[in-house]
Amino acid sequence: MANKTATESIDPATTKMLLEARRAGLETVWDRFNKQQPQCGFGQLGICCRNCNMGPCRIDPFGDGPDKGVCGATADIIVARNLLRMIAAGAAAHADHARDAVIVFKEALEGRARSYQIRDEAKLRELAAEYNISSWGEQGGAADLANALLSDFGRQEGYVTLTRRAPEKRRKIWESLGISPRGIDREIVECMHRTHMGVDNDPLHILQHGLRTSIADGWGSSMIATEVQDILFGTPSPRRSEANLGVLKEDEVNIIVHGHEPILSEMIVEAASDPEMIKLAKSVGANGINVAGICCTGNEVLMRHGIPVAGNFLQQELAVITGAVEAMVVDVQCIMPSLGGLAACYHTKFISTSPKAEFPGALRMEFSEERAAEIAREIVRTAVENYPKRDRGRVLIPRERSECMVGFSVEAILKALGGTPQPLIDAIVNGSIKGIAAVVGCNNPKVPHDHGHVNLVRELIRNNVLVVTTGCNAIACAKAGLLRPAAAKEAGDGLRGVCESLGVPPVLHMGSCVDISRILVVAAAIANKLGVDISDLPVAGAAPEWMSEKAVSIGAYVVASGVFTVLGTVPPVLGSPVVTRILTKDLGDAVGATFAVEPDPFKASKLIIEHIESKRRALGLKV
Amino acid sequence: MANKTATESIDPATTKMLLEARRAGLETVWDRFNKQQPQCGFGQLGICCRNCNMGPCRIDPFGDGPDKGVCGATADIIVARNLLRMIAAGAAAHADHARDAVIVFKEALEGRARSYQIRDEAKLRELAAEYNISSWGEQGGAADLANALLSDFGRQEGYVTLTRRAPEKRRKIWESLGISPRGIDREIVECMHRTHMGVDNDPLHILQHGLRTSIADGWGSSMIATEVQDILFGTPSPRRSEANLGVLKEDEVNIIVHGHEPILSEMIVEAASDPEMIKLAKSVGANGINVAGICCTGNEVLMRHGIPVAGNFLQQELAVITGAVEAMVVDVQCIMPSLGGLAACYHTKFISTSPKAEFPGALRMEFSEERAAEIAREIVRTAVENYPKRDRGRVLIPRERSECMVGFSVEAILKALGGTPQPLIDAIVNGSIKGIAAVVGCNNPKVPHDHGHVNLVRELIRNNVLVVTTGCNAIACAKAGLLRPAAAKEAGDGLRGVCESLGVPPVLHMGSCVDISRILVVAAAIANKLGVDISDLPVAGAAPEWMSEKAVSIGAYVVASGVFTVLGTVPPVLGSPVVTRILTKDLGDAVGATFAVEPDPFKASKLIIEHIESKRRALGLKV
Repeated sequence: MANKTATESIDPATTKMLLEARRAGLETVWDRFNKQQPQCGFGQLGICCRNCNMGPCRIDPFGDGPDKGVCGATADIIVARNLLRMIAAGAAAHADHARDAVIVFKEALEGRARSYQIRDEAKLRELAAEYNISSWGEQGGAADLANALLSDFGRQEGYVTLTRRAPEKRRKIWESLGISPRGIDREIVECMHRTHMGVDNDPLHILQHGLRTSIADGWGSSMIATEVQDILFGTPSPRRSEANLGVLKEDEVNIIVHGHEPILSEMIVEAASDPEMIKLAKSVGANGINVAGICCTGNEVLMRHGIPVAGNFLQQELAVITGAVEAMVVDVQCIMPSLGGLAACYHTKFISTSPKAEFPGALRMEFSEERAAEIAREIVRTAVENYPKRDRGRVLIPRERSECMVGFSVEAILKALGGTPQPLIDAIVNGSIKGIAAVVGCNNPKVPHDHGHVNLVRELIRNNVLVVTTGCNAIACAKAGLLRPAAAKEAGDGLRGVCESLGVPPVLHMGSCVDISRILVVAAAIANKLGVDISDLPVAGAAPEWMSEKAVSIGAYVVASGVFTVLGTVPPVLGSPVVTRILTKDLGDAVGATFAVEPDPFKASKLIIEHIESKRRALGLKV
Repeated sequence: MANKTATESIDPATTKMLLEARRAGLETVWDRFNKQQPQCGFGQLGICCRNCNMGPCRIDPFGDGPDKGVCGATADIIVARNLLRMIAAGAAAHADHARDAVIVFKEALEGRARSYQIRDEAKLRELAAEYNISSWGEQGGAADLANALLSDFGRQEGYVTLTRRAPEKRRKIWESLGISPRGIDREIVECMHRTHMGVDNDPLHILQHGLRTSIADGWGSSMIATEVQDILFGTPSPRRSEANLGVLKEDEVNIIVHGHEPILSEMIVEAASDPEMIKLAKSVGANGINVAGICCTGNEVLMRHGIPVAGNFLQQELAVITGAVEAMVVDVQCIMPSLGGLAACYHTKFISTSPKAEFPGALRMEFSEERAAEIAREIVRTAVENYPKRDRGRVLIPRERSECMVGFSVEAILKALGGTPQPLIDAIVNGSIKGIAAVVGCNNPKVPHDHGHVNLVRELIRNNVLVVTTGCNAIACAKAGLLRPAAAKEAGDGLRGVCESLGVPPVLHMGSCVDISRILVVAAAIANKLGVDISDLPVAGAAPEWMSEKAVSIGAYVVASGVFTVLGTVPPVLGSPVVTRILTKDLGDAVGATFAVEPDPFKASKLIIEHIESKRRALGLKV
């Protein structure tokens, strides 16, 4: 059993809870993954098509059976279409996330969403300048900015505004390839149109639109989400916290916020620190109220308030199995529908809050901008009142919890560097830092949990590659202690020296998955400073354990932005030699970056280091 | 062989060409369909999920294997999510179609798309009034209308404008269910977000959003497409033409326009009648230039210009196999990617024109609004110059061609009725007409070609049900002679009398698939006149041979509008008892209409007639 769980996770808290789940006869994601074996080979290769009712069709990968779908689509066409739909779904998730943030921002300005305020005035002013809001400073000027932000979603003419943040050379490449994104929603809709039966049937043509759509995500939706969230909730700055299931407390009301949006969780954090609520908690025998996060909602409140994070994607069920969670509050994305059934085995209230997302077995407490603070208080009260129902005999909180330093927004990094990226550039130029790798993305039971994340990051810093991280990778790193300044001792000498002199960890937590936009901003700033394109920089990306369609959109915009990206799980494209060649080779000629797939994190680190060294050579830097 | 083709099509021209295809060793859609047998049972039942990279997952329909995907999604969740993505793709196809029409309209008003003019000023004025364009009549007023139309796609606040055309009772139902559509693009994007891993996991909640998205199609995109196309190209009025492969000419240059948009094909029709082009044709030995349509591009030019239609969806390959087609010009949707390979076996130029759609083996002559007429002339010239390459020894044009009367826009129907729907209502009330059925949709090799269409329509008119038709059903009816006024003799006595007195066929061709919006307008007008909701009317819908995702969106908005709809091919939902129950039963309580599935057209006609009679009874009309 111990051996079994060791192949399932490298995180001791996780393996412990997984043993408990099995002891208690409770099904988890790993069990369901095992039951799905063997998974459909057609689906894995991307050569199954369900885009019309003449099908479903599948291509025989061995060449013995059908080589075309009923309409005549080949493996190349089917794989490309399926991939474009994945990008569409991922980009849609970020578009809706950003849209909802802008709507709250707008309603806050209009006085309808009274629970929200402007926390970063400077960022608000800068954004207004970027959007050319001429009415800025006058009455209604802020509302004009909100409308301008909204218009990027519905834009029918021109280009998505913040693509202007990309270096000029990069924008020219996009322009020449015809992949500068028009409206955010429009590109997603066009993905769905093009993949309809009998529309776009050329793999390259299809994938070009995928890049366009993904750019509208990275330099549109994701960037807007980050900016607006910073304006509403404050731009993160370095702070310390803790990570892993051990942050749950035996003697407090535990509330988990899980999903991706800070809109409601910010209010929950506030409500949980309300003296009246704490008094209520004490009245039911608890020593306080402990909010902890999971997934990117967790990253958002971790970055801004130091709220501890209970775990990453694959740990969501295990949190319930501790028996110590009074409420699991979810918004959108990456929330397992199994949580309702599992919560019902405990006293845990599984509370759904998004108008877009309902779950079996959930208690519905729907969010509204106007009543956000009230709803948050109702949720906290529900959790507190649930505390007496906790069955102490079934509580099992693993003791693992690691310290971490988080909050490295672009602004915070610049501040740590003394107000300019120059010291970082100098360190890269002189070779103390070999390059920068953005290691991001989900968990996936196809990979031992955190194995890909932690090992890749360790190898990179050991080789003097500064790692910037977001999402579930960031949480994996936090749990592994890599987000402590003391982790500098695991880094190579050059990187170690830089980190020690600045007092920062060798792995910088830059936020949630939408905050990969922060990484784009850093890359653009360095490229501009050096007068080169992003694709010339000694930088790379990696998603060692990705599973979501958002990750596909992210991977596409990172590559479209000129950054070589290594995937740790295999995307469903291998059924098409043409699509595989485009992604791993031809894209290099088009956008100066490609994808690679390497499940082994040690080999992946080698690919990244080789790439970084080749870019250093091209820039005339010593290797 | 003859027996075999008889199970493949009931259309003699088609069976003849299919024999020729097999004699020549050319693969068609029926061969590919046979090679795909047996099709994947998981896909057919809708219980295969590829929405994240933990999968692909599949549910065991017999209960022996996995009952949940890796994330915990059940069959109900997976089926609902897959269906929502089908609606998203279908709605996206219509959104893009309408958007492109509006962009041409706008550029025409601004003088940039000089090839286009306003052909229906009255409709333009009425639409401006509906959009409350206060600047109407002033300079720029028309441009304001164009922008207002565009804004429905990008709308972030309020509701899609033309939903106001629905009866008030209907709109109240939508409002109370929370399914009034906001922006057209936004709803499609939200479909993709909700179906992302870990977002919406409740089948009913998922399907409600499907209805909302589909309403934005029917009462938004499709309606806008119809209106704007009428304004630019003229509102159809009754005219005569011919249908089936026999419309191709031995001694003329044959140009086929295929796809869904009239934007370019209108220009091609114009260019083909240019004396200079005809002179050119004669100079290469042809007696003229013959334009013929396939699919909805065919319906558009058929309705407005009486351009003959060569066939419906399943005949597109056969048209090439006649050996007599100089150019097959395609835009978007329902275009088989096999056409390139097939055209290469003949002299036929397969010309792709849409910036959204590329095909293997196509000659690219990309459309632009600014150069539309020029490009059309280039295309016609290319076709003409290709005529001498026709291999006369390989030409086989079947002689089948049927007369038809087409062009029954709402305006044309009203005109035929003397300016008011009252005579039609009177005929329904007195029982000469039992009710109205909209029979629409694609072909699908799962059904003998045209068998579902023609037999269902014949049964309905025989039972005094007036049939309104669009799309590939309309073409099937045209080929079967059912669009001739003389077909009234196939109708029951009551319907026959009405048709003969008005001089119209018992089956009214109302246009292309987006023109199902015309049917909604008629239904709303009758409901309003009677002071009831659409769901109270003795009307029904049917799609006997549907295959496209557009048909799923159409079916959803027709049912959401209150019209009972019978599908002739099975949608991929049977793997979920919950979704099946919602679609076939629960929707009745929610929106007053449901789906039924009945592959046998004779049984389907019974279902429709029973439904119509029950609605007559409820209205107190004699049965």
